[in-house]
Amino acid sequence: MKYYDYTAAPNPRRARIFMAEKGIEVETIQVDLGEKAQFEDWFRAVNPRCTVPALQLEDGTVLCDNASIARYLEEVYPQPPLMGSTPVEKALVAEWWVRVESEGMMGVAEALRNRSEFFKDNAITGPQRYSQIPELAERGRARAEAFLKVMDERLQETAFLAGDNFSAADIAGLTLIDFCRWIKLPVPEEYEALHRWYEAVANRPSAKA
Amino acid sequence: MKYYDYTAAPNPRRARIFMAEKGIEVETIQVDLGEKAQFEDWFRAVNPRCTVPALQLEDGTVLCDNASIARYLEEVYPQPPLMGSTPVEKALVAEWWVRVESEGMMGVAEALRNRSEFFKDNAITGPQRYSQIPELAERGRARAEAFLKVMDERLQETAFLAGDNFSAADIAGLTLIDFCRWIKLPVPEEYEALHRWYEAVANRPSAKA
Repeated sequence: MKYYDYTAAPNPRRARIFMAEKGIEVETIQVDLGEKAQFEDWFRAVNPRCTVPALQLEDGTVLCDNASIARYLEEVYPQPPLMGSTPVEKALVAEWWVRVESEGMMGVAEALRNRSEFFKDNAITGPQRYSQIPELAERGRARAEAFLKVMDERLQETAFLAGDNFSAADIAGLTLIDFCRWIKLPVPEEYEALHRWYEAVANRPSAKA
Repeated sequence: MKYYDYTAAPNPRRARIFMAEKGIEVETIQVDLGEKAQFEDWFRAVNPRCTVPALQLEDGTVLCDNASIARYLEEVYPQPPLMGSTPVEKALVAEWWVRVESEGMMGVAEALRNRSEFFKDNAITGPQRYSQIPELAERGRARAEAFLKVMDERLQETAFLAGDNFSAADIAGLTLIDFCRWIKLPVPEEYEALHRWYEAVANRPSAKA
Protein backbone atom coordinates (compact mmCIF):
# COMPACT_ATOMS: atom_id res chain seq x y z
CA MET A 1 0.00 0.00 0.00
CA LYS A 2 1.03 3.61 -0.57
CA TYR A 3 -0.35 6.40 1.55
CA TYR A 4 -0.68 9.89 0.08
CA ASP A 5 -0.46 12.31 2.96
CA TYR A 6 0.11 15.92 3.91
CA THR A 7 1.32 16.23 7.46
CA ALA A 8 -0.13 19.66 8.22
CA ALA A 9 -3.72 19.00 7.06
CA PRO A 10 -6.52 17.65 9.26
CA ASN A 11 -8.06 15.09 6.92
CA PRO A 12 -4.94 13.02 6.22
CA ARG A 13 -4.18 13.19 9.94
CA ARG A 14 -7.36 11.24 10.59
CA ALA A 15 -6.13 8.31 8.53
CA ARG A 16 -2.65 8.52 10.10
CA ILE A 17 -4.10 8.28 13.60
CA PHE A 18 -6.36 5.42 12.49
CA MET A 19 -3.35 3.50 11.17
CA ALA A 20 -1.28 4.28 14.28
CA GLU A 21 -4.01 2.85 16.52
CA LYS A 22 -3.87 -0.38 14.53
CA GLY A 23 -0.08 -0.45 14.28
CA ILE A 24 -0.16 -0.29 10.47
CA GLU A 25 3.04 0.92 8.84
CA VAL A 26 2.80 2.08 5.27
CA GLU A 27 4.93 3.73 2.61
CA THR A 28 3.99 7.40 2.71
CA ILE A 29 4.20 10.03 -0.02
CA GLN A 30 3.79 13.68 0.90
CA VAL A 31 1.54 15.76 -1.36
CA ASP A 32 2.48 19.32 -0.53
CA LEU A 33 -0.85 21.12 -0.38
CA GLY A 34 1.07 24.26 0.62
CA GLU A 35 2.55 24.19 -2.89
CA LYS A 36 -0.77 23.02 -4.44
CA ALA A 37 0.89 19.76 -5.46
CA GLN A 38 -2.52 18.05 -5.41
CA PHE A 39 -3.24 19.70 -8.76
CA GLU A 40 -0.03 18.48 -10.43
CA ASP A 41 -0.43 15.92 -13.17
CA TRP A 42 1.37 13.15 -11.29
CA PHE A 43 -1.12 13.35 -8.42
CA ARG A 44 -4.17 13.84 -10.63
CA ALA A 45 -3.21 10.52 -12.20
CA VAL A 46 -3.32 8.92 -8.73
CA ASN A 47 -6.45 10.67 -7.47
CA PRO A 48 -8.46 12.81 -9.92
CA ARG A 49 -10.38 14.16 -6.94
CA CYS A 50 -7.15 16.04 -6.04
CA THR A 51 -7.49 15.39 -2.31
CA VAL A 52 -5.58 13.69 0.47
CA PRO A 53 -5.75 11.29 2.17
CA ALA A 54 -5.55 8.70 -0.59
CA LEU A 55 -4.55 5.07 -0.14
CA GLN A 56 -3.35 3.02 -3.08
CA LEU A 57 -3.92 -0.70 -2.58
CA GLU A 58 -1.82 -3.56 -3.94
CA ASP A 59 -4.38 -4.21 -6.71
CA GLY A 60 -4.06 -0.58 -7.86
CA THR A 61 -7.38 0.63 -6.42
CA VAL A 62 -7.05 4.12 -4.99
CA LEU A 63 -9.28 4.94 -2.02
CA CYS A 64 -9.70 8.69 -1.83
CA ASP A 65 -11.78 9.43 1.24
CA ASN A 66 -11.35 8.82 4.96
CA ALA A 67 -14.59 6.80 4.85
CA SER A 68 -13.30 4.26 2.35
CA ILE A 69 -9.80 4.12 3.84
CA ALA A 70 -11.10 3.43 7.34
CA ARG A 71 -13.62 0.88 6.13
CA TYR A 72 -10.98 -1.03 4.16
CA LEU A 73 -8.39 -1.01 6.92
CA GLU A 74 -10.93 -2.08 9.54
CA GLU A 75 -11.75 -5.13 7.41
CA VAL A 76 -8.16 -6.10 6.70
CA TYR A 77 -6.71 -5.19 10.12
CA PRO A 78 -9.67 -5.77 12.43
CA GLN A 79 -7.73 -5.38 15.70
CA PRO A 80 -8.25 -3.25 17.67
CA PRO A 81 -11.73 -2.43 16.36
CA LEU A 82 -12.17 1.28 15.69
CA MET A 83 -15.55 1.19 13.98
CA GLY A 84 -17.57 -0.58 16.65
CA SER A 85 -18.09 -4.19 17.68
CA THR A 86 -21.85 -4.63 18.03
CA PRO A 87 -24.42 -3.56 15.40
CA VAL A 88 -25.54 -0.59 17.54
CA GLU A 89 -21.96 0.47 18.20
CA LYS A 90 -21.07 0.24 14.50
CA ALA A 91 -24.09 2.38 13.74
CA LEU A 92 -23.19 5.01 16.35
CA VAL A 93 -19.60 5.20 15.12
CA ALA A 94 -20.96 5.83 11.61
CA GLU A 95 -23.38 8.44 12.93
CA TRP A 96 -20.86 10.46 14.95
CA TRP A 97 -18.31 10.17 12.17
CA VAL A 98 -20.80 11.78 9.76
CA ARG A 99 -21.88 14.41 12.26
CA VAL A 100 -18.30 15.44 13.07
CA GLU A 101 -17.61 15.65 9.36
CA SER A 102 -20.75 17.37 8.08
CA GLU A 103 -21.58 19.63 11.04
CA GLY A 104 -18.08 20.24 12.44
CA MET A 105 -15.27 19.82 9.90
CA MET A 106 -17.39 21.27 7.12
CA GLY A 107 -18.14 24.36 9.20
CA VAL A 108 -14.46 24.99 9.98
CA ALA A 109 -13.48 24.33 6.36
CA GLU A 110 -16.11 26.81 5.16
CA ALA A 111 -14.88 29.40 7.66
CA LEU A 112 -11.28 28.92 6.56
CA ARG A 113 -11.58 28.44 2.82
CA ASN A 114 -14.01 31.26 2.18
CA ARG A 115 -11.76 33.83 3.77
CA SER A 116 -8.06 32.99 3.51
CA GLU A 117 -6.29 34.46 0.48
CA PHE A 118 -4.60 31.09 -0.03
CA PHE A 119 -7.92 29.43 -0.95
CA LYS A 120 -9.11 32.13 -3.34
CA ASP A 121 -10.85 30.34 -6.26
CA ASN A 122 -10.43 27.04 -4.43
CA ALA A 123 -13.07 27.45 -1.76
CA ILE A 124 -13.98 23.77 -2.05
CA THR A 125 -11.45 20.94 -2.21
CA GLY A 126 -11.15 19.31 -5.60
CA PRO A 127 -10.27 20.14 -9.19
CA GLN A 128 -13.13 22.57 -9.87
CA ARG A 129 -12.62 26.27 -9.20
CA TYR A 130 -15.13 27.88 -6.83
CA SER A 131 -14.97 31.46 -5.64
CA GLN A 132 -15.09 32.39 -2.00
CA ILE A 133 -18.36 33.45 -0.37
CA PRO A 134 -17.51 35.64 2.65
CA GLU A 135 -20.96 35.15 4.24
CA LEU A 136 -20.33 31.42 4.19
CA ALA A 137 -17.17 31.89 6.25
CA GLU A 138 -19.33 33.46 8.98
CA ARG A 139 -21.95 30.78 8.77
CA GLY A 140 -19.39 27.99 8.82
CA ARG A 141 -17.88 29.33 12.02
CA ALA A 142 -21.32 29.53 13.63
CA ARG A 143 -22.07 25.94 12.62
CA ALA A 144 -18.80 24.65 14.06
CA GLU A 145 -19.47 26.56 17.26
CA ALA A 146 -22.95 25.04 17.54
CA PHE A 147 -21.51 21.59 16.99
CA LEU A 148 -19.02 21.95 19.84
CA LYS A 149 -22.05 22.29 22.11
CA VAL A 150 -23.60 19.16 20.58
CA MET A 151 -20.37 17.26 21.29
CA ASP A 152 -20.23 18.53 24.87
CA GLU A 153 -23.82 17.47 25.50
CA ARG A 154 -23.14 14.05 24.05
CA LEU A 155 -19.99 13.62 26.13
CA GLN A 156 -21.90 14.44 29.31
CA GLU A 157 -23.69 11.13 28.65
CA THR A 158 -20.95 8.88 27.29
CA ALA A 159 -17.18 8.46 27.69
CA PHE A 160 -16.55 8.62 23.94
CA LEU A 161 -18.60 9.94 21.04
CA ALA A 162 -20.01 6.58 20.00
CA GLY A 163 -20.39 5.20 23.54
CA ASP A 164 -18.11 3.38 25.99
CA ASN A 165 -15.24 2.74 23.60
CA PHE A 166 -12.72 4.87 21.74
CA SER A 167 -13.47 4.77 18.01
CA ALA A 168 -12.86 6.35 14.62
CA ALA A 169 -15.51 8.93 15.54
CA ASP A 170 -13.21 10.18 18.31
CA ILE A 171 -10.33 10.39 15.86
CA ALA A 172 -12.51 12.60 13.67
CA GLY A 173 -13.53 14.62 16.73
CA LEU A 174 -9.93 15.14 17.86
CA THR A 175 -8.89 16.43 14.45
CA LEU A 176 -11.95 18.69 14.47
CA ILE A 177 -11.00 20.32 17.79
CA ASP A 178 -7.46 20.89 16.58
CA PHE A 179 -8.77 22.17 13.22
CA CYS A 180 -10.86 24.74 15.13
CA ARG A 181 -7.60 26.45 16.10
CA TRP A 182 -7.06 27.33 12.44
CA ILE A 183 -10.04 29.67 12.73
CA LYS A 184 -9.21 30.66 16.33
CA LEU A 185 -12.29 28.93 17.70
CA PRO A 186 -11.50 27.66 21.20
CA VAL A 187 -13.61 25.16 23.13
CA PRO A 188 -15.53 27.22 25.71
CA GLU A 189 -14.18 26.63 29.21
CA GLU A 190 -17.56 25.57 30.55
CA TYR A 191 -17.70 22.56 28.17
CA GLU A 192 -16.18 20.35 30.85
CA ALA A 193 -17.19 17.04 29.31
CA LEU A 194 -15.68 18.02 25.99
CA HIS A 195 -12.43 19.08 27.71
CA ARG A 196 -12.26 15.81 29.69
CA TRP A 197 -12.76 13.79 26.49
CA TYR A 198 -10.25 15.90 24.55
CA GLU A 199 -7.55 15.28 27.16
CA ALA A 200 -8.18 11.56 26.95
CA VAL A 201 -7.98 11.29 23.16
CA ALA A 202 -5.23 13.89 22.61
CA ASN A 203 -2.97 12.05 25.07
CA ARG A 204 -3.14 8.73 23.26
CA PRO A 205 0.18 8.03 21.51
CA SER A 206 -1.66 7.83 18.16
CA ALA A 207 -2.51 11.54 18.34
CA LYS A 208 1.11 12.34 17.48
CA ALA A 209 0.95 10.34 14.24
CA MET B 1 -38.34 -0.59 15.46
CA LYS B 2 -40.07 2.64 14.53
CA TYR B 3 -39.17 4.51 11.38
CA TYR B 4 -39.61 8.29 11.25
CA ASP B 5 -40.16 9.21 7.64
CA TYR B 6 -41.40 11.90 5.30
CA THR B 7 -42.50 10.48 2.00
CA ALA B 8 -41.71 13.49 -0.17
CA ALA B 9 -38.11 14.10 1.00
CA PRO B 10 -35.01 12.53 -0.56
CA ASN B 11 -33.09 11.51 2.56
CA PRO B 12 -35.77 9.36 4.19
CA ARG B 13 -36.41 7.83 0.77
CA ARG B 14 -32.87 6.44 0.84
CA ALA B 15 -33.58 4.45 3.98
CA ARG B 16 -36.97 3.30 2.63
CA ILE B 17 -35.35 1.93 -0.53
CA PHE B 18 -32.62 0.29 1.57
CA MET B 19 -35.26 -1.47 3.69
CA ALA B 20 -37.30 -2.46 0.63
CA GLU B 21 -34.24 -4.11 -0.93
CA LYS B 22 -33.85 -6.20 2.23
CA GLY B 23 -37.55 -6.90 2.65
CA ILE B 24 -37.67 -5.17 6.04
CA GLU B 25 -41.11 -4.04 7.17
CA VAL B 26 -41.25 -1.49 9.92
CA GLU B 27 -43.76 0.67 11.74
CA THR B 28 -43.57 4.08 10.09
CA ILE B 29 -44.42 7.49 11.49
CA GLN B 30 -44.69 10.45 9.13
CA VAL B 31 -43.00 13.67 10.23
CA ASP B 32 -44.59 16.31 8.05
CA LEU B 33 -41.67 18.51 7.01
CA GLY B 34 -44.13 20.49 4.88
CA GLU B 35 -45.71 21.59 8.17
CA LYS B 36 -42.30 21.85 9.93
CA ALA B 37 -43.32 19.04 12.27
CA GLN B 38 -39.63 18.18 12.80
CA PHE B 39 -39.40 21.17 15.12
CA GLU B 40 -42.38 20.15 17.27
CA ASP B 41 -41.62 19.09 20.83
CA TRP B 42 -42.74 15.50 20.33
CA PHE B 43 -40.23 14.98 17.53
CA ARG B 44 -37.42 16.92 19.20
CA ALA B 45 -37.78 14.43 22.06
CA VAL B 46 -37.21 11.59 19.56
CA ASN B 47 -34.42 13.25 17.55
CA PRO B 48 -33.00 16.56 18.80
CA ARG B 49 -31.23 16.90 15.46
CA CYS B 50 -34.74 17.56 13.99
CA THR B 51 -34.13 15.51 10.85
CA VAL B 52 -35.54 12.46 9.11
CA PRO B 53 -34.81 9.66 8.55
CA ALA B 54 -34.62 8.47 12.15
CA LEU B 55 -34.87 4.87 13.28
CA GLN B 56 -35.77 4.02 16.85
CA LEU B 57 -34.46 0.62 17.92
CA GLU B 58 -36.01 -1.77 20.43
CA ASP B 59 -33.49 -0.69 23.10
CA GLY B 60 -34.56 2.95 22.67
CA THR B 61 -31.48 4.07 20.71
CA VAL B 62 -32.45 6.51 17.97
CA LEU B 63 -30.29 6.46 14.85
CA CYS B 64 -30.61 9.78 13.09
CA ASP B 65 -28.58 9.58 9.90
CA ASN B 66 -28.73 7.42 6.80
CA ALA B 67 -25.17 6.30 7.59
CA SER B 68 -26.04 4.82 10.97
CA ILE B 69 -29.37 3.40 9.83
CA ALA B 70 -27.82 1.59 6.87
CA ARG B 71 -24.89 0.32 8.92
CA TYR B 72 -27.19 -1.08 11.61
CA LEU B 73 -29.63 -2.71 9.21
CA GLU B 74 -26.81 -4.26 7.16
CA GLU B 75 -25.49 -5.93 10.34
CA VAL B 76 -28.84 -7.20 11.53
CA TYR B 77 -30.30 -8.09 8.11
CA PRO B 78 -27.17 -8.99 6.11
CA GLN B 79 -29.01 -10.38 3.06
CA PRO B 80 -28.85 -9.19 0.36
CA PRO B 81 -25.65 -7.23 1.07
CA LEU B 82 -25.99 -3.58 0.12
CA MET B 83 -22.73 -2.28 1.58
CA GLY B 84 -20.29 -4.56 -0.20
CA SER B 85 -19.03 -8.10 0.33
CA THR B 86 -15.22 -7.89 0.04
CA PRO B 87 -13.04 -5.35 1.87
CA VAL B 88 -12.44 -3.38 -1.35
CA GLU B 89 -16.12 -3.42 -2.24
CA LYS B 90 -17.11 -2.26 1.25
CA ALA B 91 -14.61 0.56 0.93
CA LEU B 92 -15.88 1.63 -2.48
CA VAL B 93 -19.50 1.60 -1.31
CA ALA B 94 -18.44 3.88 1.57
CA GLU B 95 -16.52 6.14 -0.79
CA TRP B 96 -19.28 6.60 -3.36
CA TRP B 97 -21.86 7.00 -0.61
CA VAL B 98 -19.84 9.91 0.81
CA ARG B 99 -19.20 11.43 -2.59
CA VAL B 100 -22.87 11.31 -3.62
CA GLU B 101 -23.76 12.89 -0.31
CA SER B 102 -21.06 15.57 0.02
CA GLU B 103 -20.57 16.51 -3.63
CA GLY B 104 -24.06 15.79 -5.02
CA MET B 105 -26.84 15.91 -2.42
CA MET B 106 -25.17 18.77 -0.57
CA GLY B 107 -24.95 20.80 -3.77
CA VAL B 108 -28.62 20.32 -4.59
CA ALA B 109 -29.61 21.03 -0.99
CA GLU B 110 -27.59 24.24 -1.03
CA ALA B 111 -29.19 25.27 -4.33
CA LEU B 112 -32.67 24.61 -2.99
CA ARG B 113 -32.44 25.77 0.60
CA ASN B 114 -30.65 29.04 -0.09
CA ARG B 115 -33.31 30.24 -2.50
CA SER B 116 -36.77 28.84 -1.76
CA GLU B 117 -38.93 31.07 0.48
CA PHE B 118 -39.93 27.94 2.41
CA PHE B 119 -36.39 27.51 3.77
CA LYS B 120 -35.88 31.13 4.79
CA ASP B 121 -33.95 31.09 8.10
CA ASN B 122 -33.63 27.32 7.82
CA ALA B 123 -31.00 27.10 5.12
CA ILE B 124 -29.39 24.12 6.86
CA THR B 125 -31.33 21.19 8.31
CA GLY B 126 -31.45 21.08 12.07
CA PRO B 127 -32.62 23.12 15.03
CA GLN B 128 -30.32 26.13 14.53
CA ARG B 129 -31.52 29.03 12.41
CA TYR B 130 -29.28 29.99 9.49
CA SER B 131 -30.10 32.64 6.91
CA GLN B 132 -30.00 31.98 3.21
CA ILE B 133 -26.93 32.89 1.15
CA PRO B 134 -28.07 33.43 -2.47
CA GLU B 135 -24.53 33.00 -3.85
CA LEU B 136 -24.40 29.59 -2.24
CA ALA B 137 -27.50 28.54 -4.17
CA GLU B 138 -25.58 29.22 -7.39
CA ARG B 139 -22.48 27.43 -6.22
CA GLY B 140 -24.45 24.43 -4.99
CA ARG B 141 -26.05 24.01 -8.38
CA ALA B 142 -22.65 24.20 -10.08
CA ARG B 143 -21.25 21.56 -7.72
CA ALA B 144 -24.14 19.18 -8.34
CA GLU B 145 -23.72 19.70 -12.07
CA ALA B 146 -20.00 18.91 -11.85
CA PHE B 147 -20.76 15.78 -9.86
CA LEU B 148 -23.14 14.43 -12.50
CA LYS B 149 -20.15 14.39 -14.82
CA VAL B 150 -18.08 12.54 -12.21
CA MET B 151 -20.84 9.93 -11.93
CA ASP B 152 -21.07 9.54 -15.71
CA GLU B 153 -17.30 9.05 -16.00
CA ARG B 154 -17.37 6.47 -13.22
CA LEU B 155 -20.28 4.61 -14.82
CA GLN B 156 -18.43 4.40 -18.11
CA GLU B 157 -16.06 2.08 -16.23
CA THR B 158 -18.36 0.12 -13.94
CA ALA B 159 -21.95 -1.19 -13.96
CA PHE B 160 -22.76 0.37 -10.61
CA LEU B 161 -21.15 3.16 -8.61
CA ALA B 162 -19.14 0.88 -6.32
CA GLY B 163 -18.35 -1.73 -8.99
CA ASP B 164 -20.12 -4.80 -10.37
CA ASN B 165 -22.91 -4.94 -7.81
CA PHE B 166 -25.88 -2.78 -6.88
CA SER B 167 -25.29 -1.17 -3.49
CA ALA B 168 -26.35 1.51 -1.03
CA ALA B 169 -24.21 3.94 -3.05
CA ASP B 170 -26.59 3.45 -5.99
CA ILE B 171 -29.57 4.09 -3.73
CA ALA B 172 -27.95 7.38 -2.74
CA GLY B 173 -27.22 8.11 -6.41
CA LEU B 174 -30.80 7.40 -7.48
CA THR B 175 -32.21 9.76 -4.89
CA LEU B 176 -29.66 12.36 -5.97
CA ILE B 177 -30.75 12.25 -9.62
CA ASP B 178 -34.40 12.56 -8.61
CA PHE B 179 -33.51 15.35 -6.14
CA CYS B 180 -31.88 17.24 -9.02
CA ARG B 181 -35.38 17.71 -10.48
CA TRP B 182 -36.24 19.93 -7.51
CA ILE B 183 -33.76 22.47 -8.86
CA LYS B 184 -34.61 21.70 -12.50
CA LEU B 185 -31.21 20.20 -13.15
CA PRO B 186 -31.57 17.47 -15.79
CA VAL B 187 -28.92 14.86 -16.59
CA PRO B 188 -27.35 16.00 -19.87
CA GLU B 189 -28.41 13.77 -22.75
CA GLU B 190 -24.81 12.91 -23.66
CA TYR B 191 -24.21 11.26 -20.27
CA GLU B 192 -25.14 7.88 -21.71
CA ALA B 193 -23.56 5.79 -19.00
CA LEU B 194 -25.39 7.73 -16.32
CA HIS B 195 -28.70 7.32 -18.17
CA ARG B 196 -28.13 3.57 -18.62
CA TRP B 197 -27.39 3.19 -14.90
CA TYR B 198 -30.36 5.37 -13.89
CA GLU B 199 -32.76 3.22 -15.91
CA ALA B 200 -31.43 0.11 -14.19
CA VAL B 201 -31.73 1.42 -10.64
CA ALA B 202 -34.95 3.41 -11.09
CA ASN B 203 -36.69 0.32 -12.47
CA ARG B 204 -35.97 -1.87 -9.46
CA PRO B 205 -39.17 -2.40 -7.45
CA SER B 206 -37.48 -0.84 -4.38
CA ALA B 207 -37.34 2.56 -6.12
CA LYS B 208 -41.09 2.90 -5.52
CA ALA B 209 -40.70 2.48 -1.76
